[in-house]
Amino acid sequence: MHGDGRKPNHTASAERPGSIGVVSPREYTFGAPGAGILLENGAEFGPITVRYELYGRLNADRSNAILVTHAFSGDAHAAGYHSPSDHHAGWWDSMIGPGKAFDTDRYCVICSNVLGGCRGTTGPGSINPETGKPYGLSFPVITIDDMVKVQLALIDHLGIEQLHAVAGGSMGGMQALEWAVRYPERMRSVIIMAATSRLSAQAIAFNAVGRNAIISDEFWNGGDYYDGPPPARGLAIARMVGHITYLSEQAMGMKFGRRLQERASFGFDFEDQFQVESYLEHQGGKFVDRFDANSYIYLSKAMDYYDLGGRFNGLEHAVAGCRSKFLVVSFSSDWLYPPYQSKEIVFAMMRQGIDVSYVELESPYGHDSFFLEIERQTPLVASFLEGLNE
Amino acid sequence: MHGDGRKPNHTASAERPGSIGVVSPREYTFGAPGAGILLENGAEFGPITVRYELYGRLNADRSNAILVTHAFSGDAHAAGYHSPSDHHAGWWDSMIGPGKAFDTDRYCVICSNVLGGCRGTTGPGSINPETGKPYGLSFPVITIDDMVKVQLALIDHLGIEQLHAVAGGSMGGMQALEWAVRYPERMRSVIIMAATSRLSAQAIAFNAVGRNAIISDEFWNGGDYYDGPPPARGLAIARMVGHITYLSEQAMGMKFGRRLQERASFGFDFEDQFQVESYLEHQGGKFVDRFDANSYIYLSKAMDYYDLGGRFNGLEHAVAGCRSKFLVVSFSSDWLYPPYQSKEIVFAMMRQGIDVSYVELESPYGHDSFFLEIERQTPLVASFLEGLNE
Repeated sequence: MHGDGRKPNHTASAERPGSIGVVSPREYTFGAPGAGILLENGAEFGPITVRYELYGRLNADRSNAILVTHAFSGDAHAAGYHSPSDHHAGWWDSMIGPGKAFDTDRYCVICSNVLGGCRGTTGPGSINPETGKPYGLSFPVITIDDMVKVQLALIDHLGIEQLHAVAGGSMGGMQALEWAVRYPERMRSVIIMAATSRLSAQAIAFNAVGRNAIISDEFWNGGDYYDGPPPARGLAIARMVGHITYLSEQAMGMKFGRRLQERASFGFDFEDQFQVESYLEHQGGKFVDRFDANSYIYLSKAMDYYDLGGRFNGLEHAVAGCRSKFLVVSFSSDWLYPPYQSKEIVFAMMRQGIDVSYVELESPYGHDSFFLEIERQTPLVASFLEGLNE
Repeated sequence: MHGDGRKPNHTASAERPGSIGVVSPREYTFGAPGAGILLENGAEFGPITVRYELYGRLNADRSNAILVTHAFSGDAHAAGYHSPSDHHAGWWDSMIGPGKAFDTDRYCVICSNVLGGCRGTTGPGSINPETGKPYGLSFPVITIDDMVKVQLALIDHLGIEQLHAVAGGSMGGMQALEWAVRYPERMRSVIIMAATSRLSAQAIAFNAVGRNAIISDEFWNGGDYYDGPPPARGLAIARMVGHITYLSEQAMGMKFGRRLQERASFGFDFEDQFQVESYLEHQGGKFVDRFDANSYIYLSKAMDYYDLGGRFNGLEHAVAGCRSKFLVVSFSSDWLYPPYQSKEIVFAMMRQGIDVSYVELESPYGHDSFFLEIERQTPLVASFLEGLNE
């Protein structure tokens, strides 16, 4: 129960104003066989290594910790840089840092890679200690609830009794919601952005297409591809599909319109390519370098399964035991997890007399808005977090 | 210029009330080398065989013909059955037949498979007479305009000076619009449903994903797969993506919700499958039996290219020469070619003083509504066509 959380793992950020600076990933391993976590599928699973990062300093009574939970393709690297020459900041660097929405001068922000992921936390690409080989499809089918159990073990390990907040967008918002329902005493507040309590048939359909693209790849080999070429084309196509759902029609129109790549007008041959096409192909290709196809399958499946209301015979019952303050944020042009799905959560909470604030931000950027609408999110989040200290 | 259009190619429909009955496809071949059509890419192309069907009887002055243009995955078989034991009616059988919207007791309805298709009209899977082998990717890149040129040759062949109407939905609506712009004297009226004058970046993106899935298939072989297995998995994935865009989120929710296939509750293993997943996989698998992957590439590319306003420096200029009456129908939940895109066409026509009626039907069925909203389309279309006879 005693962690190393009090010492921040980042250096002074003098050279990058507003940035948390250089951070180092950490790892926590727990759950030797027989002492693992009990998965939602009924099986016990371990050992588990969790990759995580800390930003800011944990105070003396460990009461200023905020757990940030990442989206589908995110990882533990939410803010700062991994080296002085690193040009890629963490995925929510615009929100996490000194003076930012999650102000690291006041809070100690924690972010960990999810169970089933491929960015340092145990997942299907990890070595199964029993066989000495990667799990592949022998990795257990995991759920949002299972991800949260692993995060709980980390928070226990860091000696944190009660989090100041759990906050996340998209799949991260599902985890935040799950935390609130499962462990209502363990946080004072919850921020849920661009999320849902259950995916629509359409959202499941998009995930299914992605999985089909992967398992149709000639190198898929039933998920056992770690000693050969990965199913890269299939994974790239899955990512292309995903990217379309993360943007809005309007955002794509603003960004690309019908402009051609490298040509001023149609040649009516196979050299003609619209900018939006080459953008998607580029995104798909890049993704393959940092993501494991099996993790795509497991994590997308975990999202499909998520159905908080279904599990508790109604959302209202699911949230009945929540004790935290909530901030729920949706985005007008998010058609993957549309605002009406956020409202379902909010209405269920209101009917239970839970302290919930809801904001639907008018934004053209679609589901990805929570990465982009920083100026408008910052005062919302900062004042919500601050209000808790009154 | 003298065709065989006066003799209908269907038998009495006594056994299937309301149906046109059994129909036989016909073929017309034209354009020997040197006398082919001039494609939009500047090349001359021929010979071309057009597969088509006729429903109803052409009157003495050949003034009652209606050309119906098909959507992306459609074909010449728009109505009736191909044999007495055939259980699959043509794709718009609910709209075409005695007493139906396109009333075959009054009109002679013509439908042909498009250039570049794979259902009887010359396309990339056809034999190139110069090589004795299928064209594959040596088939020219074609456009909506090129499809219409081939239809014009057919209408000339049938001896029809002026069509009573050209009507189509989706890609068929683009063809109808193109007819009106290119050959304004050749029809009295045009019906454009669930269509657009140009695809959005998002719609192009979905087509690009489909094409990428096909060319990523291990059996793709640069489009030269006709003497081996086809790129079936890639084509199936392309079709799955397409299907999602043809339905609305609401329609998928009504049809499938979050119900599981063959299970009452989650097993948290790889046997778990949502109904929407197995539906899409089934649709993808079925499609492979009747569609050629190369046609998918060529026809989707033709749609991506289509930009009527871009070609004429503004939609208003494009439609300036139109002489017909127009009926434009959009559907509230069509997010592939949303109502605002139909309105762009309508407003451009109105500014030119063109006689255009516009109806946005409130429907939950998404882009596919024009196949489904038969009860509401029927009086609209029937009265529009009838009004022309006054």
